[in-house]
Amino acid sequence: MNIILFESDEIERPLPMDDERARHLLEVLGRKTGDSFDAGILNGPKGKGILKSIENDKLTLAFEWLGEEPPLFPIDLVVGLSRPQTNRKILQEATSLGVRSIHFVTTDRGELSYATSRLWTTGEWRRHLVAGTAQAFTTRIPDISFGKSLSETVKKLDTYSERIALDNYEATGPLVDKLEDNNSFAICVGSERGWTGDERNLLRESGFRLAHLGERPLRTETAVVAAVSIVLSQQSWR
Amino acid sequence: MNIILFESDEIERPLPMDDERARHLLEVLGRKTGDSFDAGILNGPKGKGILKSIENDKLTLAFEWLGEEPPLFPIDLVVGLSRPQTNRKILQEATSLGVRSIHFVTTDRGELSYATSRLWTTGEWRRHLVAGTAQAFTTRIPDISFGKSLSETVKKLDTYSERIALDNYEATGPLVDKLEDNNSFAICVGSERGWTGDERNLLRESGFRLAHLGERPLRTETAVVAAVSIVLSQQSWR
Repeated sequence: MNIILFESDEIERPLPMDDERARHLLEVLGRKTGDSFDAGILNGPKGKGILKSIENDKLTLAFEWLGEEPPLFPIDLVVGLSRPQTNRKILQEATSLGVRSIHFVTTDRGELSYATSRLWTTGEWRRHLVAGTAQAFTTRIPDISFGKSLSETVKKLDTYSERIALDNYEATGPLVDKLEDNNSFAICVGSERGWTGDERNLLRESGFRLAHLGERPLRTETAVVAAVSIVLSQQSWR
Repeated sequence: MNIILFESDEIERPLPMDDERARHLLEVLGRKTGDSFDAGILNGPKGKGILKSIENDKLTLAFEWLGEEPPLFPIDLVVGLSRPQTNRKILQEATSLGVRSIHFVTTDRGELSYATSRLWTTGEWRRHLVAGTAQAFTTRIPDISFGKSLSETVKKLDTYSERIALDNYEATGPLVDKLEDNNSFAICVGSERGWTGDERNLLRESGFRLAHLGERPLRTETAVVAAVSIVLSQQSWR
């Protein structure tokens, strides 16, 4: 936790002692009454928190806000729903890299049960977004959707984005080839078992270039970090 | 497991039923007597395994070897020893990306206990290498060292490598700038708390360029995948 993040409706209230942020402040950061710490409001400003008082069951905090944080990077990530442990890593890592949206879509070869796992039904997914945002020492969280189909999701993407889909089998070349400085990107990464022929046709008809990251098959979470990092590395706005 | 890997001295013996590869063959891959599967010898050839017989306590296998696998990529990775959970991910992910060596070094700000965790003392680390190699559908495993100092490790690196160290504070520019097609690379990634001034001096004197991956601080494992992927993306031999 490089910064302690709050929802906008939390900052007027004391922080309950059993909140993990309270324990982090006292036990990991070792803050005492009067000390300050890096704080932010989710999708709002960054600034300093001040620990005003420590009681048995709560901390009283005050804040001094500085400015708004820069916008997220214009990259929309579309990922096939996978096992929850894979999706947790993608939520945290893609968020820390700064993409503006992540869409976890149903795919022909993904299992239906993936969309109804506790990660999605309990709201646990948002915790991973906040953790990825705190890791990146900022406040902006990406937009998330999950459980929609690939075709429905692709239709709603920014029309002007450069569109790239990772594929180990029918790629026309490495991701980095033909990668240009562009205003925005849509990056599609399949679930563990890859795309079906129908999905490849849908992607091609929707303007996606099928590209690979080399001969070595990678885990979905590794491929996501690699693809986003390579795209970012080639942009003037990164 | 995209391929089932064996040590060279294992292939003449039956595979005990309680070995996880036996369970994987029968339960995940659903193979029956007479079926074949992708197999490899660690640091040796790739080919096909054939399931000759299934007994209560063991499987009898036969093999047909094809050719040797291509060499690993000429990238030496030097990483500050971190928490075991971080190092496990780095072992698997950097191996799947294809680096030829990974050196987990002691750093001024790393905790001494990291080098004596079960991950290193029980040989568990090798399991993660094998998993990363199987993920990449190949047989070659990188060279590993752990617990040596940064200075000792840097001295032994290939003299002709292009040398890059990630640094959020004193970087002279983004990693991708000035990145050229080179014969080999050494990439240094600090532990969670970063480098000390002494370490930065050592790195600079040893020919390392301090470079960053952008403004957003990343977890060590995310930074490793990002840095290796960006370097690979710019090489003609990748």
